[in-house]
Amino acid sequence: MKDVLEEEIVSDVDIAEVREWAREGGALARHYFNNVAKKRKADSTWVTQADVEVEQLLRERVATRYPTHGVMGEEQGVGEIDREFVWSIDPIDGTGAFVAGLPLWCISIGLLRWGLPYLGVIYLPILDDCYWAGPDGPAYRNDEQIRVLTAATIDDNDWMAVSSYAHRTFSISFPGKTRALSSIAADFCYVSRGSAMGALIGRASLWDIAAGMAILHAAGGVAYGLSGSALATTSLLDGRNLSEPIVVASPDMVDTLRGYVSRR
Amino acid sequence: MKDVLEEEIVSDVDIAEVREWAREGGALARHYFNNVAKKRKADSTWVTQADVEVEQLLRERVATRYPTHGVMGEEQGVGEIDREFVWSIDPIDGTGAFVAGLPLWCISIGLLRWGLPYLGVIYLPILDDCYWAGPDGPAYRNDEQIRVLTAATIDDNDWMAVSSYAHRTFSISFPGKTRALSSIAADFCYVSRGSAMGALIGRASLWDIAAGMAILHAAGGVAYGLSGSALATTSLLDGRNLSEPIVVASPDMVDTLRGYVSRR
Repeated sequence: MKDVLEEEIVSDVDIAEVREWAREGGALARHYFNNVAKKRKADSTWVTQADVEVEQLLRERVATRYPTHGVMGEEQGVGEIDREFVWSIDPIDGTGAFVAGLPLWCISIGLLRWGLPYLGVIYLPILDDCYWAGPDGPAYRNDEQIRVLTAATIDDNDWMAVSSYAHRTFSISFPGKTRALSSIAADFCYVSRGSAMGALIGRASLWDIAAGMAILHAAGGVAYGLSGSALATTSLLDGRNLSEPIVVASPDMVDTLRGYVSRR
Repeated sequence: MKDVLEEEIVSDVDIAEVREWAREGGALARHYFNNVAKKRKADSTWVTQADVEVEQLLRERVATRYPTHGVMGEEQGVGEIDREFVWSIDPIDGTGAFVAGLPLWCISIGLLRWGLPYLGVIYLPILDDCYWAGPDGPAYRNDEQIRVLTAATIDDNDWMAVSSYAHRTFSISFPGKTRALSSIAADFCYVSRGSAMGALIGRASLWDIAAGMAILHAAGGVAYGLSGSALATTSLLDGRNLSEPIVVASPDMVDTLRGYVSRR
């Protein structure tokens, strides 16, 4: 009987509706794009009116539809995290890109169950691309199934997503290209679709990676700390940052990519 | 009398029409985006059917409208470069980005007069942004006038565009962010609009920079080699690559930025 009830709770989360929320948030944010009043946050990243409004919109959607779930978000912080289901929202992941007029910012909506990635939706408004995965997989870009790149020789045209601080923080000997997309959620998308071979992510909070981790897992990928330890999302529920940089890739590439990276 | 005739020749180049050509090329390329049959070129960059078709389209437009002008382009190479006016076309600048499903590829159409940047149009189809400048300036993004960033203190949120090989080729101590946009023409656009503080460009041919140089100059920017010498586009007319990497920025920032870069 318990199993049946659990099944019902699970199937209650309507991922098609969450994709619609992400599009709604994207439309709202796009209205501000290239037309933004910016101010400095205490942590010296950018916050915009768009960020604040999109988070408010998504919090309202969650509260109305799933009143028993917790919510944590980048702008309003950590709420009730002791619930079975906690939504982890980055209203605009890549605010720096947004403010710079660059295209790869996105709306990132993750759902955790007991602290583990359960469902993820990442919407890139400028490309009109929606990446998503539910608890049973697989992962999708729009309506097309996606998978990470598996074991391959690395050549000049292969690429790795890196942070925009990587030139100061890491020595990277990856023999292909490196690109800073300026959005951690977008990093997860481009690895999950098999475009980037991997991603090196420096600093991140749970809202940056919650949706991405669900999509990555469903696409066959993994995330490991530079030291080789598996990433435990449960330890990030209180809003703290990753304890060390992580590398995201297919299981058979992740150690190779870790080997190309050292801290300065 | 001679001056009047020259003036007439100059005003004969209709930049609004060139912007339309760029949009036409963009629409054609976009049809192939995320749906591309790729093959390796001898030089191990990517070439796509879209590249070939867009260059063909633009060459036809130029030949019909300006039959006395020369044309050089990335795919079909160097043509008649001993003319007063030579068009320098990169049908898709950022083919690697295009193939990877990344958004910042563009149609780059430059016009040189006696080997010097004269007019430039760069169109980014995914953003629907058109950067352009005629011989009399100023530079524009769509209908909005743009200028490079001038002397400023550099903080964590300032950024510099770099090549996707920069991690292997350069040591960069720039105190802000670095981002590889994967398109040299886009690098010029983001510097010219005052979003990026500067750009470090490693390898380039004239078709990569012809349009960008016209826009950059009109926006108040300059391009210098890492060694400090001014960039001479006339030396690139035969299709050869830049003799050294260049840094692109406002005149009062370019030396500072050069100082943050050294070759490995």
